[in-house]
Amino acid sequence: MKQARIAFEGRVQQAWEDHGKVRLADGRRLDESEVTWLPPVTPGTILALGLNYADHAAEIASQAPEEPMVFLKGANTLVGHRAFTPRPTDATNMHYECELAIVIGKPARNVAKADAYDYIAGYTVANDYAVRNYLEGFYRPNFRIKSRDNCTPIGPWLVDAADIADPMNLRLTTRVNGETTQEGSTKDMIFDVPFLIEYFSAFLTLQPGDVILTGTPKGTVNVMPGDEVVTEIEGIGALHNTIIERKA
Amino acid sequence: MKQARIAFEGRVQQAWEDHGKVRLADGRRLDESEVTWLPPVTPGTILALGLNYADHAAEIASQAPEEPMVFLKGANTLVGHRAFTPRPTDATNMHYECELAIVIGKPARNVAKADAYDYIAGYTVANDYAVRNYLEGFYRPNFRIKSRDNCTPIGPWLVDAADIADPMNLRLTTRVNGETTQEGSTKDMIFDVPFLIEYFSAFLTLQPGDVILTGTPKGTVNVMPGDEVVTEIEGIGALHNTIIERKA
Repeated sequence: MKQARIAFEGRVQQAWEDHGKVRLADGRRLDESEVTWLPPVTPGTILALGLNYADHAAEIASQAPEEPMVFLKGANTLVGHRAFTPRPTDATNMHYECELAIVIGKPARNVAKADAYDYIAGYTVANDYAVRNYLEGFYRPNFRIKSRDNCTPIGPWLVDAADIADPMNLRLTTRVNGETTQEGSTKDMIFDVPFLIEYFSAFLTLQPGDVILTGTPKGTVNVMPGDEVVTEIEGIGALHNTIIERKA
Repeated sequence: MKQARIAFEGRVQQAWEDHGKVRLADGRRLDESEVTWLPPVTPGTILALGLNYADHAAEIASQAPEEPMVFLKGANTLVGHRAFTPRPTDATNMHYECELAIVIGKPARNVAKADAYDYIAGYTVANDYAVRNYLEGFYRPNFRIKSRDNCTPIGPWLVDAADIADPMNLRLTTRVNGETTQEGSTKDMIFDVPFLIEYFSAFLTLQPGDVILTGTPKGTVNVMPGDEVVTEIEGIGALHNTIIERKA
């Protein structure tokens, strides 16, 4: 099953995918352009991975990390499908990042890799934009890069874990104005999903609705105001976003 | 007014300070030992400052930062007054950190320093424990240090902003097993509260209930299981916490 959170007729509603349409609880079936898409989850905690694909690590850093490179993100960063993400006027290099997003289904503490999938509710697509030229010094390199309002589109659908046979073998694709600019596979993650759930849950409790953004493969390129960016993951969905200009 | 969030008689309740007692909405007045204290707020985003007092920066780092050194914390880190914080068995240096916590009162975006106090609902006390020997490499130095379950006691009271004449001139004190080990004043912050609200709100929207932990002065020392740690801020409150052992 694919679920969405939408705003329609003055309230927030759950909806479901039904043969390419958006189905409401009352049975009405709408075109996707008729609704306002919201992030499919409202996480308490958002954990994100940097440099979790070797080819992307080689692309922007000197070496791949030996331990997961983790940062937290604020709730202010999330926007839904077909929303707008600002590019600050002082950005010289703003990258999209197509990422598989894991949504936790039940409290997870001290979970072994072998049991990790039992704790996943489902999957969605995220685009964790980065303003690369905001890279800062020791201790806070990702804060301004990754914590801006609306910098992380997520959705459209939350896909049940049971519907994805092998989350570690999914094709990721990004298209900018219709042209394919990024291709990869989740099988190339350095730290895979079971590893990450074991690693995190060793010292923090993952709660239902919490999200793990698992990193992006190579192929990140600069985007400009007006660009239409589609990040897609096989079997999960295609997330549309438009870049707008924002005075820095 | 001083407000608290407590658990009592099977439910979460708001309570108020009343001549040293905890007053419930129904008028009953309880001793503080009769209730379970919860964090006084449930923030969407928790922003925290590192090295924001020059004397503390000198104590643990080679130099003070030129720009705020910011990290995010997860909701899993917060516990209330009189709760327990685990010390992992592989910690060699676990520090308390007495900090003034700012609670946002209304959405803040592009707020000028001169208007910053209009956006503050109130203040409370936080103790943002750090396991120093978990310091990691470039990009993720604070993640394991500062994101552990229950590592940040906060409370007991949320004190109305209007009741604090000058938040930039409050005495901070920490006592371990009754002995004073840390003393400082909020006047020694490198980046003060109005500066921080202007800085953050330039690229992210602070929401009501969001928390800013403003850093700690010098005097952080190692604590051990069984230690009773009281972090106190003049006019705001005295937050009690007990260290327990947890297998790493």
